[in-house]
Amino acid sequence: MSEHPTIALDAMGGDHAPAMVVEGAELARQRFPGVHFLLFGAEDRLRPLLAKLPDLAAVTTVRHTDEVVTADAKPAQALRTGHNTSMRLAIDAVHDGEADGVVSAGNTGALMAIAKFVLRTLPGIDRPAIATFFPTLRGESVMLDLGANVECDSNNLIQFAVMGEVFARTVLGLTQPTIGLLNVGAEELKGHDALRDAAMVLRNTKLPIKFRGFVEGDDIAKGTVDVIVTDGFTGNVALKTLEGTAQLIAVFLHETFRSSPMAKLGYLLARPALAKLRNRMDPRRYNGATFVGLNGIAVKSHGGTDPVGFANAIGVAVDMIKNGFNDKIKAEFGRLGAEQQFDSLAAAL
Amino acid sequence: MSEHPTIALDAMGGDHAPAMVVEGAELARQRFPGVHFLLFGAEDRLRPLLAKLPDLAAVTTVRHTDEVVTADAKPAQALRTGHNTSMRLAIDAVHDGEADGVVSAGNTGALMAIAKFVLRTLPGIDRPAIATFFPTLRGESVMLDLGANVECDSNNLIQFAVMGEVFARTVLGLTQPTIGLLNVGAEELKGHDALRDAAMVLRNTKLPIKFRGFVEGDDIAKGTVDVIVTDGFTGNVALKTLEGTAQLIAVFLHETFRSSPMAKLGYLLARPALAKLRNRMDPRRYNGATFVGLNGIAVKSHGGTDPVGFANAIGVAVDMIKNGFNDKIKAEFGRLGAEQQFDSLAAAL
Repeated sequence: MSEHPTIALDAMGGDHAPAMVVEGAELARQRFPGVHFLLFGAEDRLRPLLAKLPDLAAVTTVRHTDEVVTADAKPAQALRTGHNTSMRLAIDAVHDGEADGVVSAGNTGALMAIAKFVLRTLPGIDRPAIATFFPTLRGESVMLDLGANVECDSNNLIQFAVMGEVFARTVLGLTQPTIGLLNVGAEELKGHDALRDAAMVLRNTKLPIKFRGFVEGDDIAKGTVDVIVTDGFTGNVALKTLEGTAQLIAVFLHETFRSSPMAKLGYLLARPALAKLRNRMDPRRYNGATFVGLNGIAVKSHGGTDPVGFANAIGVAVDMIKNGFNDKIKAEFGRLGAEQQFDSLAAAL
Repeated sequence: MSEHPTIALDAMGGDHAPAMVVEGAELARQRFPGVHFLLFGAEDRLRPLLAKLPDLAAVTTVRHTDEVVTADAKPAQALRTGHNTSMRLAIDAVHDGEADGVVSAGNTGALMAIAKFVLRTLPGIDRPAIATFFPTLRGESVMLDLGANVECDSNNLIQFAVMGEVFARTVLGLTQPTIGLLNVGAEELKGHDALRDAAMVLRNTKLPIKFRGFVEGDDIAKGTVDVIVTDGFTGNVALKTLEGTAQLIAVFLHETFRSSPMAKLGYLLARPALAKLRNRMDPRRYNGATFVGLNGIAVKSHGGTDPVGFANAIGVAVDMIKNGFNDKIKAEFGRLGAEQQFDSLAAAL
């Protein structure tokens, strides 16, 4: 809830760390005055970078460690043996109350495993999920889970729906976000049992959420709903399919504009407009997958991102902290828990 | 295997039937000389359409029926009560040996249910799948299952892999198609048990197939492999996500080219090149989802397609018939069956 949050940064995670992390922090500092940084990593590499950015250095505390979680480390191994890695220490800082949130561009599996172990889940939440947002025909939508849970039961999906709704309000600033469950058809009888059971509960809940029923794969880019709820397997495949298709068309367009002198000239004339489109779909704008459901804010940046993308991932953490994401989650789950107690009481009578 | 196949057409299926079906058949007739058609539907509507197309009429036999499967009919109901519908009679014609394959733009669920019931699965195949192909960075790829089976075990996935490989050879004309299992990561330990078990069998099979292991969502559009194997839930979501994303970008581009006078001029200059790109990605080129694994060729056309799209769906059926799709499937499954027998013998010793 802090207006001047402290963000713990894993300075050594990501393909271009630590320079990318420090430069990203500088961009975030300019955008969010009052934010402080705790920077975990090799001091001898971080000091020269900070020396060039005195305004950043003034709001940053460096915590030295030589150890890192490598990109190919197994999550279980990183959890067991990586107690002094930059990633682990940055997460510990959130647990210990020294930081309000953590951002890392390192190994996703390790980050998830360590964050889950150190921060634990919020009351009422069985499993955390990975959420992100992306551009659609109608604006921006959130999707979760993107890979934390390969298999999900109906309770997991219901919890993801509630967390996704809070995410859409907190990070996207929507007032009445709509929710859909990803399925293979809009009819009530389609899909797995877990989906049908979750839909039944969400249709009948007294929580003030706008559940729109089932949506299909093509509804993702259409923006038919603001929050798309799915299991981690399907969500991961769907998001990567979306990204891959966008890249395919970008390559096809590139070839098209080089295919003749007229096309090249046409491209030159349309270039300013096309640059705006490129900016609208810039993956760096949508960098920052969030682990939701943990007792602490943890955001994963793309490993290959640049300072602009990393600053956006920090921005997601700052939005969540300033808008009280976890307090809102707790309030919703308090209501959901009371409702479920009431239901089981009613069922028992 | 016939060089002069007979195709049974459900003349009443699809949003623009029967005119769209008859005009599509005419385009297919021009493209595939020697093909005959059995046209099932309302004679009073079909005769006037055929009267305008004497060359088509010369190779077409009309079989009158007044009954149709409606777009909103439940599959079980269509199967139970629709014995004289144009869809059912067209499928019966394949079963009875009067036609070599059937094409319908009608109700997908009903078509699947009726085709499965009437034609039965080929020996060695537990469940049929829906397959289609689409444009990628490297050419064209096949994906299956696209929705026939919401849940799949490892045997289903192995069978889909073998059928997809034959499809890529038969319809796309590839000589050594590569196969990948869709997963959330390329590492061996990722994903469901069914995926890991299927991967293990496909890695060790003596069948002459090129199995490349796991692929991810972004590999679909990249064309990393020629055949993408997945369960019907994931495949349906992935294909629709791909289509939805392509449509989103088309809308964004349309807006971009109208956003300024310069952009408009640029569009006019690049228009011939962009038209080629549009043609390359034209959904009508990729019309025709095939039910593979049945004892007969059955192709589903998009319900909203036009004659060009419907002719392409007929083309898929013709390719499969002329190239002996089902004979090749039977040969592969004969080998697979022998291998499995050998394996269980070895395990028993």
